[in-house]
Amino acid sequence: MNTRLPAGDRRSMVEIGRRARAAAGRLAKADGDTKNQGLHGIADSLVEARPRILEANAQDLERAEQAGLSAALVDRLTLNRARLEAIASDVRGLSELTDPVGETYEAATLPNGLQLHKQRVPLGVLAVIYESRPNVTVDVAGLAIKTGNAAILRGGSEAVHSNGALVEAVHAGLAQVGLPFDALQFIDDPDRARLTELLHLHEYVDLVIPRGRNALHEFCRQHSTIPVVTGGIGICHLFVDESADLQAALRVICNAKTQRPTVCNALDTVLVHRAVAGSLLPALVDQLAPEGVTFRADPTAVSFLEQTAAGGGALPQAVRAAGPEDFDTEWLSLVLGLKVVESLEEAMAHIAEHGTHHSDGILTGEAAHARQFVAEVDSAVVYVNASTRFTDGGQFGLGAEVAVSTQRLHARGPMGLRELTTYKWVVTGSYHTRE
Amino acid sequence: MNTRLPAGDRRSMVEIGRRARAAAGRLAKADGDTKNQGLHGIADSLVEARPRILEANAQDLERAEQAGLSAALVDRLTLNRARLEAIASDVRGLSELTDPVGETYEAATLPNGLQLHKQRVPLGVLAVIYESRPNVTVDVAGLAIKTGNAAILRGGSEAVHSNGALVEAVHAGLAQVGLPFDALQFIDDPDRARLTELLHLHEYVDLVIPRGRNALHEFCRQHSTIPVVTGGIGICHLFVDESADLQAALRVICNAKTQRPTVCNALDTVLVHRAVAGSLLPALVDQLAPEGVTFRADPTAVSFLEQTAAGGGALPQAVRAAGPEDFDTEWLSLVLGLKVVESLEEAMAHIAEHGTHHSDGILTGEAAHARQFVAEVDSAVVYVNASTRFTDGGQFGLGAEVAVSTQRLHARGPMGLRELTTYKWVVTGSYHTRE
Repeated sequence: MNTRLPAGDRRSMVEIGRRARAAAGRLAKADGDTKNQGLHGIADSLVEARPRILEANAQDLERAEQAGLSAALVDRLTLNRARLEAIASDVRGLSELTDPVGETYEAATLPNGLQLHKQRVPLGVLAVIYESRPNVTVDVAGLAIKTGNAAILRGGSEAVHSNGALVEAVHAGLAQVGLPFDALQFIDDPDRARLTELLHLHEYVDLVIPRGRNALHEFCRQHSTIPVVTGGIGICHLFVDESADLQAALRVICNAKTQRPTVCNALDTVLVHRAVAGSLLPALVDQLAPEGVTFRADPTAVSFLEQTAAGGGALPQAVRAAGPEDFDTEWLSLVLGLKVVESLEEAMAHIAEHGTHHSDGILTGEAAHARQFVAEVDSAVVYVNASTRFTDGGQFGLGAEVAVSTQRLHARGPMGLRELTTYKWVVTGSYHTRE
Repeated sequence: MNTRLPAGDRRSMVEIGRRARAAAGRLAKADGDTKNQGLHGIADSLVEARPRILEANAQDLERAEQAGLSAALVDRLTLNRARLEAIASDVRGLSELTDPVGETYEAATLPNGLQLHKQRVPLGVLAVIYESRPNVTVDVAGLAIKTGNAAILRGGSEAVHSNGALVEAVHAGLAQVGLPFDALQFIDDPDRARLTELLHLHEYVDLVIPRGRNALHEFCRQHSTIPVVTGGIGICHLFVDESADLQAALRVICNAKTQRPTVCNALDTVLVHRAVAGSLLPALVDQLAPEGVTFRADPTAVSFLEQTAAGGGALPQAVRAAGPEDFDTEWLSLVLGLKVVESLEEAMAHIAEHGTHHSDGILTGEAAHARQFVAEVDSAVVYVNASTRFTDGGQFGLGAEVAVSTQRLHARGPMGLRELTTYKWVVTGSYHTRE
């Protein structure tokens, strides 16, 4: 039944789409136990195939160093025993989660006696376009199989050997439970024209999920005839209200900025109410500058910081005046924007103008202010008195995360297993006819 | 505040998008009472403006007749006192429905004490592209306002005068409750290039809903960088299982085919189990042919009908052999495909190959067959012992319908008020930080 993908096979995109659709039909019928056994099979094969995977990864790393990739990129590309075990363990973890497929909800009996309900079913075929992290390959494979979806993966060329070895291990795991290899097809061709072809397979692919930089999301949105989940870009704000507990606010700001500055839910801009700017801003700089944070301050924040500077009138070294683009930049590093506002309304207006509808919060002691902020700020996740770093499927208790959506359709914010499903309506009658 | 749209105004698309986004911000904050009063205001102005609207409609009708439009198209374009009152009454009816905006759900307290829930919010800005029916103009305006969304409408050039008068009445209604005119902007420019511009406004528009022929859906899908709800194409099947109550089955088939043959949920193909084909098919032809139904029969159905024909060996006049495209045609008329199958599996395989994932059903007395059909047939609505004609927001008790989706993302099948909303996550802590 399962025929192994020959090495160097270069199928047509339509053929890949057709195979994915056929595999999706089989996966949709697989019961939860089979899918969970498949996940354990994949984890086992990953552990078993470790020597081959690490060897393939070494080839990619060698090429990356020759090509002069940055240390950060090389790190993202690197697999080792511990990372591989973590990847395998995450796949096993998926088997513990509740399978959303088959859940029924919104059941109703209509006045004419017709019974109807919605029943959760897999989305069908996912296309995931990503860059150098090879862990995404297994991550997506696991999420897709758990939810009964087939996946077409298009990874970065930097990780081509690693991905090849990982996909082979996934296929070996699928084979153990008789699930089709075509549940996971991998495209290692870096050709953009071929990517565009993939993005036009709306007959066979139900959802495109780009994972990577803004340019990749934009490319997919421009060229895809398939719905695309865009997201991952977070210019995140915290507004410190005049009623906030300032000591606690400092802790939250520090966490949101420094706990992991390279990710999309890290803090980019602090908005401070004028009434507390004089005490908060100097303390903020004092506390965060030693952590390596540098600041881009608006004119009012600059003058507050100058007034309170130890030297009298000089800005602290870590602070400079914000440039015109600074409040529209997702820093992904230890830079933090600072701006003083006159009111909650001004803070919300700033977020509306400069935010990306990702994660924004208020730090406040006033329930009415919290309510107004929650009602009016239009972000995927709106926080009251918490760090923006919580925007994450795992942190939200979803068990897993396939992406963080900042668009409005289908799913918003962290997408877990349920967001990889759709539903069918089931209507049952006794030979009912419409009048 | 509200400035009336000057006659002949031809704003840039970006300006239209910007205004819609600003209006959406105001609508999102409007409470349910204001929106309901706005709906009553619109209904009142429609009644008040009747002379002007009917005069404008007469202009369109005159042009339509000069242009030689078909009687069916002229009928769809026609407004009269009764139709206008029905339109106004539908708008009033929306005010009776529950407003989905603000509903909270999936509330949870995480082990760390963070509280989270989802809160329903409007989608934002809808672009609805439709053809000649002027009732859609008011229909969409009402649905959008009820759900706090702004709408950009692009209607057909045949209805340009009628739509102008209707939009004016809608604006008058909005003005009564201080809601912005830009909640409903209407583009009467038939230029395709301008439509393409609209389909690229992803910065300002959240969802595109085409309402019309397949070609329009396809155009939107190909050219839009905004998510598109495609749908409305239904090649609908009923499978008559060997265990079906044949008399009752005939009633359901007759209803699904003839009750309103021109719409997407009307029946296109009957699949008959061989065991009952000999008795069902002749009765079906006898009963439906007098209603004007003609049949396209596969070779096996042909031979069953020949065997039982009164003349002996001759096909009934209403029946002819099916051509190669016939089972892939959405008839939208009194034509019905007939095919004999050997098994439930063959019926499901036919639906998988020829269906459009819209509405498909089984007529059966066997619960196990019903279960298998429901589990394996991948349609937006799957029926057991009921007419496909029930696929409709009103029939499903959704109170209203904006479209029938046959794509898989966001919403499937009839889309009601709730499907015009999205959600935000609201996370509340006590200055929580992530470890």
